[in-house]
Amino acid sequence: MAEAEAWREYLPLAHRLADASGAVIMRHFRQALAVEDKDHIAGFSPVTVADREAETAIRELIEEACPDHGILGEEHGHERPDARFTWVIDPIDGTKAFITGMPTWGTLIALQDRGEGIIGVLDQPFLGERFVGHGAGSWLGERRLRTRRCAGLDDAVLYATEPDMFDRAERAAFDTLAGRVRLRRFGADCYAYGMLAAGCVDLVVEASMNIWDIAALIPVVEGAGGRVTSWEGGPVGADGRVLAVGDPALHAAALEILAPAAMTKG
Amino acid sequence: MAEAEAWREYLPLAHRLADASGAVIMRHFRQALAVEDKDHIAGFSPVTVADREAETAIRELIEEACPDHGILGEEHGHERPDARFTWVIDPIDGTKAFITGMPTWGTLIALQDRGEGIIGVLDQPFLGERFVGHGAGSWLGERRLRTRRCAGLDDAVLYATEPDMFDRAERAAFDTLAGRVRLRRFGADCYAYGMLAAGCVDLVVEASMNIWDIAALIPVVEGAGGRVTSWEGGPVGADGRVLAVGDPALHAAALEILAPAAMTKG
Repeated sequence: MAEAEAWREYLPLAHRLADASGAVIMRHFRQALAVEDKDHIAGFSPVTVADREAETAIRELIEEACPDHGILGEEHGHERPDARFTWVIDPIDGTKAFITGMPTWGTLIALQDRGEGIIGVLDQPFLGERFVGHGAGSWLGERRLRTRRCAGLDDAVLYATEPDMFDRAERAAFDTLAGRVRLRRFGADCYAYGMLAAGCVDLVVEASMNIWDIAALIPVVEGAGGRVTSWEGGPVGADGRVLAVGDPALHAAALEILAPAAMTKG
Repeated sequence: MAEAEAWREYLPLAHRLADASGAVIMRHFRQALAVEDKDHIAGFSPVTVADREAETAIRELIEEACPDHGILGEEHGHERPDARFTWVIDPIDGTKAFITGMPTWGTLIALQDRGEGIIGVLDQPFLGERFVGHGAGSWLGERRLRTRRCAGLDDAVLYATEPDMFDRAERAAFDTLAGRVRLRRFGADCYAYGMLAAGCVDLVVEASMNIWDIAALIPVVEGAGGRVTSWEGGPVGADGRVLAVGDPALHAAALEILAPAAMTKG
């Protein structure tokens, strides 16, 4: 198999990981309905159990199929950091959506080849939707996804998960950008990136993101024709700031507003 | 049929209205994927068409089944305002969610008997979920819904659609309340009231609401054990301010914070 086609070899495993995690997680979604109040008050929550069990299920499948691959996840740190291939996983991205019954959380699974994302999966098992990005584009089931054209900010729809995800300087820049677009909405979690890839949204601008929050979403958005960078225009980095555009032509205009904030610390 | 049981007579019609509107609307959801950019730029949008066609379908069914009933909807004003029974409808509540592909919009259908809601339907055809409230409680399909207990604000989850829905005085009061709760989230639209009825959320506090935005949600929330009032504690009124609680014990604490804002104009 050619070097450039490594994603083809591991795509079936990526699907099996999503199948396994989805089965685990759906046993716990909306279980606040069934569990006793005392569990809720004690800080035991369905999301904690679902997160832990799903990450365990994913890790077991990777260890079995590809014991030399690295694994990086929120719960269990970084295994085999020197491996060529690393799976970057977040079983439940959008835990606040999850615990409140909203369907905008997702399971994020990325495969990186020497740090570059070659497979990205955003799985939403409650909706039965799986967004997958790789070397042959981005797909929602059998449907090829393509971002939509959006010539300028004044015609753009912008999403962010939460106004509180920004520090002071970030928030000022975000608000400036939000004041220039046609529509700004909060609350979509990782699902906003799925809608970006599907051509329903033009911009997602976020901060305070960990690598496992964004790694899987980069191939999904870029496979559909979009672009995902830091607020300085380079790769998404340790500062956790993400600028995702559907139409690459929109990138420069957004960057012009966000980049000054990226130079400062709030 | 006893006077108190009028909801039983009209419940099958309420379901038929939701079936009909859902079929119409789902033909248009996410059609931004298919329509030309020029349509979008010209202000022609799938939501406009879906809204209009769904309201027409609903009105035709009501006129046929109950020609003496009143109808109150966003698009076509108030027909037969002196009728004992009035259907209050909003085919697509949450149009900003709808146009961005998010599944938190809903079709709202209420039947009022002399101004009091006796049936409420929140239908989400993309999810295949229909929340129904009436004299025999609230239901999501075959499942009886009950709000959850929540003793105090510091343990409560609060939702609102959008920070910009509040005027200045309202926003100050909302922010004070938000600072007292365990979790505050934006972006759920009418679906937040469904999650309130289902026991996943404790408070929904909103403003700028029209009667067709809330009429259907009152029987859904109250049939599950919750309470829906204005910010002054009376019936939701022309000022458009809504305080919805899952646990009635939470009402007084929220009201204490919100009521002062209700006395002022922003």
